[in-house]
Amino acid sequence: MFKSAEIGHRLSKEAYRDAVPGLRAALLDAQVSLFEKRKTPVVVLISGQDGAGKGETINMLYEWMDPRFISTLAFSEPSDEERERPPMWRYWRSLPPKGRLGIFAGSWYSDPIRERIQGDISVKELDARAEQINRFEQMLVAEGALVLKFWFHLSKDGQKQRLKALSSDPRTAWRVTQWNWDRLKTYDQLQEVAGHLLRVTNTAAAPWVVVEGTDDRYRCLAVGQVLLAAISQKMTETEPPRAAAAPMLRVDLDGRNVLTELDLSLTLADKPYKDALARWQGRLSELLRDERFKHRSLVCAFEGVDAAGKGGAIRRIAAAMDARQYQVTPVAAPTDEEKAQPHLWRFWRNLPRHGQVAVFDRTWYGRVLVERVEGFCTEPDWLRAYGEINDFEHELIDAGVVVVKFWLQISQEEQLKRFKAREQVAFKRFKITHEDWRNREKWHDYQQAICDMVERTSTGESPWTLVQANDKNFARVKILSTLCQRLEAALQEKSAPASAPDDPAGKKAAVQRKSAKRKT
Amino acid sequence: MFKSAEIGHRLSKEAYRDAVPGLRAALLDAQVSLFEKRKTPVVVLISGQDGAGKGETINMLYEWMDPRFISTLAFSEPSDEERERPPMWRYWRSLPPKGRLGIFAGSWYSDPIRERIQGDISVKELDARAEQINRFEQMLVAEGALVLKFWFHLSKDGQKQRLKALSSDPRTAWRVTQWNWDRLKTYDQLQEVAGHLLRVTNTAAAPWVVVEGTDDRYRCLAVGQVLLAAISQKMTETEPPRAAAAPMLRVDLDGRNVLTELDLSLTLADKPYKDALARWQGRLSELLRDERFKHRSLVCAFEGVDAAGKGGAIRRIAAAMDARQYQVTPVAAPTDEEKAQPHLWRFWRNLPRHGQVAVFDRTWYGRVLVERVEGFCTEPDWLRAYGEINDFEHELIDAGVVVVKFWLQISQEEQLKRFKAREQVAFKRFKITHEDWRNREKWHDYQQAICDMVERTSTGESPWTLVQANDKNFARVKILSTLCQRLEAALQEKSAPASAPDDPAGKKAAVQRKSAKRKT
Repeated sequence: MFKSAEIGHRLSKEAYRDAVPGLRAALLDAQVSLFEKRKTPVVVLISGQDGAGKGETINMLYEWMDPRFISTLAFSEPSDEERERPPMWRYWRSLPPKGRLGIFAGSWYSDPIRERIQGDISVKELDARAEQINRFEQMLVAEGALVLKFWFHLSKDGQKQRLKALSSDPRTAWRVTQWNWDRLKTYDQLQEVAGHLLRVTNTAAAPWVVVEGTDDRYRCLAVGQVLLAAISQKMTETEPPRAAAAPMLRVDLDGRNVLTELDLSLTLADKPYKDALARWQGRLSELLRDERFKHRSLVCAFEGVDAAGKGGAIRRIAAAMDARQYQVTPVAAPTDEEKAQPHLWRFWRNLPRHGQVAVFDRTWYGRVLVERVEGFCTEPDWLRAYGEINDFEHELIDAGVVVVKFWLQISQEEQLKRFKAREQVAFKRFKITHEDWRNREKWHDYQQAICDMVERTSTGESPWTLVQANDKNFARVKILSTLCQRLEAALQEKSAPASAPDDPAGKKAAVQRKSAKRKT
Repeated sequence: MFKSAEIGHRLSKEAYRDAVPGLRAALLDAQVSLFEKRKTPVVVLISGQDGAGKGETINMLYEWMDPRFISTLAFSEPSDEERERPPMWRYWRSLPPKGRLGIFAGSWYSDPIRERIQGDISVKELDARAEQINRFEQMLVAEGALVLKFWFHLSKDGQKQRLKALSSDPRTAWRVTQWNWDRLKTYDQLQEVAGHLLRVTNTAAAPWVVVEGTDDRYRCLAVGQVLLAAISQKMTETEPPRAAAAPMLRVDLDGRNVLTELDLSLTLADKPYKDALARWQGRLSELLRDERFKHRSLVCAFEGVDAAGKGGAIRRIAAAMDARQYQVTPVAAPTDEEKAQPHLWRFWRNLPRHGQVAVFDRTWYGRVLVERVEGFCTEPDWLRAYGEINDFEHELIDAGVVVVKFWLQISQEEQLKRFKAREQVAFKRFKITHEDWRNREKWHDYQQAICDMVERTSTGESPWTLVQANDKNFARVKILSTLCQRLEAALQEKSAPASAPDDPAGKKAAVQRKSAKRKT
């Protein structure tokens, strides 16, 4: 991987001086067209050995381009707000919007490399992390991003010389610390770990560019040219890249599915309802005040047929919680800041801190439900969304978040009854719109989408709870009791849940939760 | 202030039952029209004594209204991201957008009350804080917000009884801690401090509503009715409230002003420029790596005539900084999330953490420059903006942020020359648009607006630096050297700068900076 970056590439002053003005003009042009079209965010990872010129290169990019449309994101110790969310949260919230360039100095590669060198994770665990990273980057690219990953390489000798040169120049001496010299001792180890990780994350969607770091002029020009070529190519793309995706394969011989099998005649009389409601609300309230919940968080996802009673169910849950402990996020049309980001971004930004609850009224499943049925996204888009959603929930669960998902199902007749009733009651009239009537006509398309969704995203760690909601009493108690049981089970786990015994993210999350305990 | 809230108000079950359905329907209706018009954010402060029913009332509001359009914001210990910004930052970032209701459980009143009871601040300091709060709330109201401040009152006996009742009921016993009983001992003190603070913050724009807290039914219904009345009234308002503002009063007898007095013929030859540039860049780089800067931050504001060279100057500053240490925020049209907030919100959200630099390419002065001249806001809007801007900068400076503001001035002839030159150079062509030519026609309106701006916002703690920018060399060196001198002076201060020796916010900021030192 690093061989061609030990050749001793150098560029003369003259060659550099000849090349820069043209490159600079072209880069600015590219940046402007990028900004004007606002179709693509550019994610640039600058990584490599100490002293290989990461900072210098970033500064050079700023000199060449318009700094107003670049952000550099540096990641050192996570803040407490970051520690109380899944590890990827800090990167999600730093993603550049469409039209802008985000330079990541330090990235999702830093932790796995460091942990492997320190021996905290095995090679197998490193590979699992690489797999996660690959899926994340694939998602970014599928969502329209240009992802450029640079690794600046130095030979062992080269690194020693760079550090010496830096420390002998008074203008740069401050940048070399004992820590850097110590790192030199682990050179071979870094080479091995980084070499391995780079190889397994060198994907077609987001390949690595290894650049020899020794010569400033060579390195800067190389990065500038790659950046220019990549942006220019992206700008001329007429179609966004589409991952190959098989169409949905279904077996339907008898018309039976998870929805038709629901017994919608189930009911609960008022008296037992009131008792059960009070009991489960009390239990929920207890669980949320449990000492163990202080280092966990809860995400409740509500989906359902129109008028299935999501709002009423959410209010019954809310009644058991302290208003200071939860936020209800109604999911409607995205804001323009949200539209400039991958479709899951708006959910990442609303994730709860430790000890907090986030209730989503409609969710990240919008893409495989309404967006699919109404044609708001393309088929390849919603086909890949199942996997992206599973990854998203997996990251939450790995970080100790309790995720509970409900689908509320009512019959077509019951829906009609409720629509008509809503039109009669003054303060419910706003709940019924023209769009609701229109959606109703697509009942069967929606049922199909729901079945596919359950099929593909009801996983062992994050199952769907299908709720028979023709009877509100029955539905509310089922939701509350399920919620309590899931929460209770999660709090009884010794450590963070992990998909496999050696799952690195899970292990890390457990460590994170431990270290995040407040020292107050 | 509290007399009418010790009368012993009670509401019978029947009266309550009769009133609620109508209130509930009306509240929902009001909420829907609020959301549909998206003109007004509703800021509801719920405060008062322990055990006076704050939590119960909030929960009741959630039961009555649609929880999807309400957020409850609770404030306890600030996070590290909050500690490294001015004290008001956490409230700014929690403000509800237009169309939504934000309930503040704990607010900008909590700290002053606590600090006064603990004896950390004097009555005079408390009054200074009240004055700040009044201006903040006035700004919110002027920006279209509905601000409702509730204080739940209990007589001393009433509080004892409420606490007893809560702790004897197993469902609520958990909510009463030793801390609450201890607080009972300070009842008289709280009454005195809160009474005073409420009185001085009981403004026409944002008056207090004191509600007797003893009886749940009475308290909830009272809050519901006030909320309904206030929203309904706000919805029927045809004109937003306008604070009385005198038009600009100017003396102009001889055509001379701060801009005409600038000697635009000042130049710096290339050789001394290169030396000076290197020297000041080196100095800036040192200052930003200074140990003392780790607990401060820097905000650089750039304004200027079109083509005055802001971008070039920013790049020369950027060259002296580590890209990981700063962000450049170009200020263009606000996003829709920004439009749903007070005009200063977009700047608050981009404030730097400790040890970081924020460079604004165009700034919060847009309101008194382009928005004023182009008529994007009304005259009362920009007239009140001067004071709001001064308050904003004062809050930054009080929290230890170093604020440096530059106005870059060139002559009309020089501007014309640069416009034409830009049209010739490929990679600068994007910088010159039709709008630039149009702005040029309003040269004199802009000059007037600039003079007014300097007149009203060049304060002792936050002066404008007017830069003679016809010669780029001269301008860049003046900017860099000014920046270094201001930063150096700030770092030499013993404690946080404060507008007065007994300034409470300044004192607090100093304490904050101290406590924010990382324990790593």
